[in-house]
Amino acid sequence: MPKYSFKNDYAEGAHPKIIQALSHGNLEQEDGYGKDNYCQQAANLIRKIIKNSKADIHFVSGGTQANLIVISAILKPYESVIAASTGHIAVHEAGAIEASGHKINIIESKDGKLTPQNIQTVLAQHQDEHMVKPKLVFISNSTEIGSIYSQKELQQLSVYCKKNHLLLYLDGARLASALTSLVNDLSLAQLSKLVDVFYIGGTKNGALLGEAIIINNDRLKENFRFNLKQKGALLAKGRILGLQFLTLFQDNLFFELANHANLMAFKLVKAIRKLGYNFLTEPASNQIFPIFPNKLINKLHQKYEFYVWQKIDQKNSAIRLVTSWATKEEAIDKFINTISL
Amino acid sequence: MPKYSFKNDYAEGAHPKIIQALSHGNLEQEDGYGKDNYCQQAANLIRKIIKNSKADIHFVSGGTQANLIVISAILKPYESVIAASTGHIAVHEAGAIEASGHKINIIESKDGKLTPQNIQTVLAQHQDEHMVKPKLVFISNSTEIGSIYSQKELQQLSVYCKKNHLLLYLDGARLASALTSLVNDLSLAQLSKLVDVFYIGGTKNGALLGEAIIINNDRLKENFRFNLKQKGALLAKGRILGLQFLTLFQDNLFFELANHANLMAFKLVKAIRKLGYNFLTEPASNQIFPIFPNKLINKLHQKYEFYVWQKIDQKNSAIRLVTSWATKEEAIDKFINTISL
Amino acid sequence: MPKYSFKNDYAEGAHPKIIQALSHGNLEQEDGYGKDNYCQQAANLIRKIIKNSKADIHFVSGGTQANLIVISAILKPYESVIAASTGHIAVHEAGAIEASGHKINIIESKDGKLTPQNIQTVLAQHQDEHMVKPKLVFISNSTEIGSIYSQKELQQLSVYCKKNHLLLYLDGARLASALTSLVNDLSLAQLSKLVDVFYIGGTKNGALLGEAIIINNDRLKENFRFNLKQKGALLAKGRILGLQFLTLFQDNLFFELANHANLMAFKLVKAIRKLGYNFLTEPASNQIFPIFPNKLINKLHQKYEFYVWQKIDQKNSAIRLVTSWATKEEAIDKFINTISL
Amino acid sequence: MPKYSFKNDYAEGAHPKIIQALSHGNLEQEDGYGKDNYCQQAANLIRKIIKNSKADIHFVSGGTQANLIVISAILKPYESVIAASTGHIAVHEAGAIEASGHKINIIESKDGKLTPQNIQTVLAQHQDEHMVKPKLVFISNSTEIGSIYSQKELQQLSVYCKKNHLLLYLDGARLASALTSLVNDLSLAQLSKLVDVFYIGGTKNGALLGEAIIINNDRLKENFRFNLKQKGALLAKGRILGLQFLTLFQDNLFFELANHANLMAFKLVKAIRKLGYNFLTEPASNQIFPIFPNKLINKLHQKYEFYVWQKIDQKNSAIRLVTSWATKEEAIDKFINTISL
Repeated sequence: MPKYSFKNDYAEGAHPKIIQALSHGNLEQEDGYGKDNYCQQAANLIRKIIKNSKADIHFVSGGTQANLIVISAILKPYESVIAASTGHIAVHEAGAIEASGHKINIIESKDGKLTPQNIQTVLAQHQDEHMVKPKLVFISNSTEIGSIYSQKELQQLSVYCKKNHLLLYLDGARLASALTSLVNDLSLAQLSKLVDVFYIGGTKNGALLGEAIIINNDRLKENFRFNLKQKGALLAKGRILGLQFLTLFQDNLFFELANHANLMAFKLVKAIRKLGYNFLTEPASNQIFPIFPNKLINKLHQKYEFYVWQKIDQKNSAIRLVTSWATKEEAIDKFINTISL
Repeated sequence: MPKYSFKNDYAEGAHPKIIQALSHGNLEQEDGYGKDNYCQQAANLIRKIIKNSKADIHFVSGGTQANLIVISAILKPYESVIAASTGHIAVHEAGAIEASGHKINIIESKDGKLTPQNIQTVLAQHQDEHMVKPKLVFISNSTEIGSIYSQKELQQLSVYCKKNHLLLYLDGARLASALTSLVNDLSLAQLSKLVDVFYIGGTKNGALLGEAIIINNDRLKENFRFNLKQKGALLAKGRILGLQFLTLFQDNLFFELANHANLMAFKLVKAIRKLGYNFLTEPASNQIFPIFPNKLINKLHQKYEFYVWQKIDQKNSAIRLVTSWATKEEAIDKFINTISL
Repeated sequence: MPKYSFKNDYAEGAHPKIIQALSHGNLEQEDGYGKDNYCQQAANLIRKIIKNSKADIHFVSGGTQANLIVISAILKPYESVIAASTGHIAVHEAGAIEASGHKINIIESKDGKLTPQNIQTVLAQHQDEHMVKPKLVFISNSTEIGSIYSQKELQQLSVYCKKNHLLLYLDGARLASALTSLVNDLSLAQLSKLVDVFYIGGTKNGALLGEAIIINNDRLKENFRFNLKQKGALLAKGRILGLQFLTLFQDNLFFELANHANLMAFKLVKAIRKLGYNFLTEPASNQIFPIFPNKLINKLHQKYEFYVWQKIDQKNSAIRLVTSWATKEEAIDKFINTISL
Repeated sequence: MPKYSFKNDYAEGAHPKIIQALSHGNLEQEDGYGKDNYCQQAANLIRKIIKNSKADIHFVSGGTQANLIVISAILKPYESVIAASTGHIAVHEAGAIEASGHKINIIESKDGKLTPQNIQTVLAQHQDEHMVKPKLVFISNSTEIGSIYSQKELQQLSVYCKKNHLLLYLDGARLASALTSLVNDLSLAQLSKLVDVFYIGGTKNGALLGEAIIINNDRLKENFRFNLKQKGALLAKGRILGLQFLTLFQDNLFFELANHANLMAFKLVKAIRKLGYNFLTEPASNQIFPIFPNKLINKLHQKYEFYVWQKIDQKNSAIRLVTSWATKEEAIDKFINTISL
């Protein structure tokens, strides 16, 4: 019997409603490359939800693809992007941003978030043409280590960036989980207003594939589809991305799925806390990082798949547990049972 | 009522068997990024069919993506790729190859194919470090204008490339149509033996998305997945590519679908010939280029979507008609009827 | 005894006045990276001569460097540059432009020049995001095959580019030779007004090294020094470039040197014509392309170095002869003598 | 009266012997692009001194240019280079390495040097294709903050790199100063044996411009001139680089000039120590970093140009003082006098 996996939020296929949607209008002819009716309907629906009727919306197949296209489209050759040391672009994209020609100015961050203060440090160090010129700030919500931005934090970042002629880009691979977090105080529309460009992740929230890039800043809209094509991101049958986002944003499915993931995570959190264990970072979304004795970790590995994130001391380590729309409550109960014995 | 489209071979969704396959094992957990069981099974099946048990096989989502990854992975910064003037990389990829740093040496070609003779011309012109160093030959089968390579032609190219230290790459976006052409004398296994690397197109032959990159040359295999990740091509739920290729190559579906497309195209060809019209290029696969009076073209445009390819003289133009696995014979009959009146 | 070379215009060192200038103020301290007094003085002098007090002027060490920096600084990732098939960037820069990410749209050109008509052909073919977007026109004056632009021709190009939102860039590696041609009707100031950006070549007109990039279009000026630094073009002791251009443009040396080169070329032209030989292209500057019998070419090769440019027929070929500021009249006379025997 | 500058080691022109050498054979014809006799003689002389008759040697015009060419020539698209946080490529090259497509893995370093231990940390973090693959180690000697590598340290690095399939590249912009340091125990030949590729700086040691790239590793030699051309680094009159390196390495001038710079620096060090001031880093070469009271720094700024490097506390800061082959002992004495009052 295979072990149950808490390694990530993309181990299962898609939510059944998504699977079902893929056959919708299957034998009808549609225009290619994202110009089909479903992409248009999905874009209109999202525009309504983010309350920006003028937003440009493009659908692509994955997060690394979204990041490399948005960032390389925005920056001039000598401009750089600022990111937290935990940022996906800084670590887990195999150098995709640098391959497009741009330096990432990395800020050490314990909670995965950026602040005006630590961005200011980078700006202060970059004063002349012997260095790159920081132009873009990259943040993730929820972050790669599960934390989320409060409305106040995001607002401060937004104001700071405008004042300092920096653009603000938000990676929303796990945006649904952030917005349905118990400690969240941001709506999708409020968040959208505070950033120049962001993407809404589908893959990690029930879709088979697909991320929706939302461009709010007019100056970034021009000719964007050329960038998509050049990076190999225009799917001939773009309809499959439109169909999925249409399904996610009809009837609130997008938020329901993330809500389930968060509930499962917090059931774990509550039980782990009760047993007296601590967390590497304060739990806020569907990624949690409990600190367990190595002995317990070894025992868990016999039944479960998950990443050991970081050594804490000789006897203890933090592990990463990820829940998703597909996580079964039964599996959560069994896991709690195992650590409680 | 919308017009019936002969513009391309990706206007419909996927073949029903493909749609059905996508839900297979949907709620079971699989490893991500192409390491799932379906990708492995599909790769094994393809290895068997091409008769190369050592081939490296990777699934990506589109043709431009396949081309830019393969080509940028192979070439050193100063090396170039040779292509026909009609080649997809030369025209219709928004500069994707150049964006990865490489020049395309373009050879004017009337039938979309390359020969040792015209490649030799390029080599003769590139002799020192003031010019790029041609290293790779890019061909398509079927070509972007519907022609196909005979066994003899491909063999001559292959021998020539080896002798001249050039690598040979075949873009198989429409490989199924080539291999099921009435005038084809190549099997998939024979073709595979003659090239260093190629890809088998799924998108234009019944899949929702997906192309299978096959690497035969050992020297091109090392660390290839790094290239996939860096270009944003590793889908988290790679299973959807594996599932589709598994379906295509089980029970011969891949060849059946292309065969239908070719039959529909040749029904058109026969009727057009009978009416006394000529073709811009000799019909061989699912793309045909009849030369019609402009008056007839205008009339056709009232009922059909298709591209006007090229002006022939004051009164006549060549148009492009594309058939697919989804083309209905009824539509063909109606079209023939329209031109016959 | 080594053969006398007509291969190029950079076989000798620098004009003695340039050599002498290099020791000027040698032990005095100057700011680095082009911010020294000599670069400023030279820039001011050039601004005066081109009659544009607001031009941005930057000195770099070579022509390929100038081209790759200017072009990559101007273009967005999906934009391309249009050039003649004979253009330096199209052939002799080892793919430098493509290495910076951009496609070159090549126009076949017999005389090395571009016209609104053939640029229009390229624009007409590029209509959507599946292709690159042509944004810049690259021309050379004198061209790589010795021809020059008339005032009328350049004006027409300039008007056409403005009207079509294209930028116009002129490679002036051999600009001095063009402007002192017997058939030239353009002044440096007139030419400067007609282009967005250009460079004035020093290396091929008596300097040891050095090209002056002149930016007239305000929108191309911002942060240009970042591009210079990033491409490795900012010389720590930038003074050596300033000193040379100061020397070239004081007392008219720049034009005198080119005038000598042209006079030497035309002495050859006159003699060759008198002997009944034709030219591949109409002689206009310091590069000429006489068509000689192969037998004569073999004989010449015993005493002279030069390139055989192109086979004309079984018995005749065009050769390239290049004169320079350093060409000795005695050498010209001897050469004429050799072909006259 | 302008202030005397201790800002850098390239404020003056070239050593008089270098200036003189530039006119050598000035009116004689030479082959272009580094194929002249002087480049060949200089390369042969260097091969003798480093005791590697098979080394490939190429001359370029500056350090950033050398770095970007060597690094981009070596690495595959997904490979990265490891550097200290103080490394020139990590900070002061305007993103030149990233612009060529490669990530720099940065290691925090207090003394500007790398060790097997901290490289191991980077390797341990890079295990799969979601991250870049570290392949090259970049070090500088002397480092950007004046420290130098001992023979033992370099040997350990060299052994570690070989064992871990990493290539080792040494930036020798200030190599002369390192090799003539009082605490140095490495000869140029010994150093050369321990690295795969390095460059010897001319610009900061008495030349007008010029760095010599030395390739020891056979696998890095192939087609290297293509890289030089593509990056705009092949000077048409390459002779001026050959002439300067010939002069530097004849009669030991290279070492004499650096020795003078070091002596001047250590005269400063001795006097500063005697006055009771400390240094940010242990002085070893021609860059020293004394910690002075801000009040004294303000006073010094009235007469001298230099960089304030780092704030130490409320009242004190470290400044950078750089000496060179051209530093006058009289200036050193005056400076000492000023701080002694």
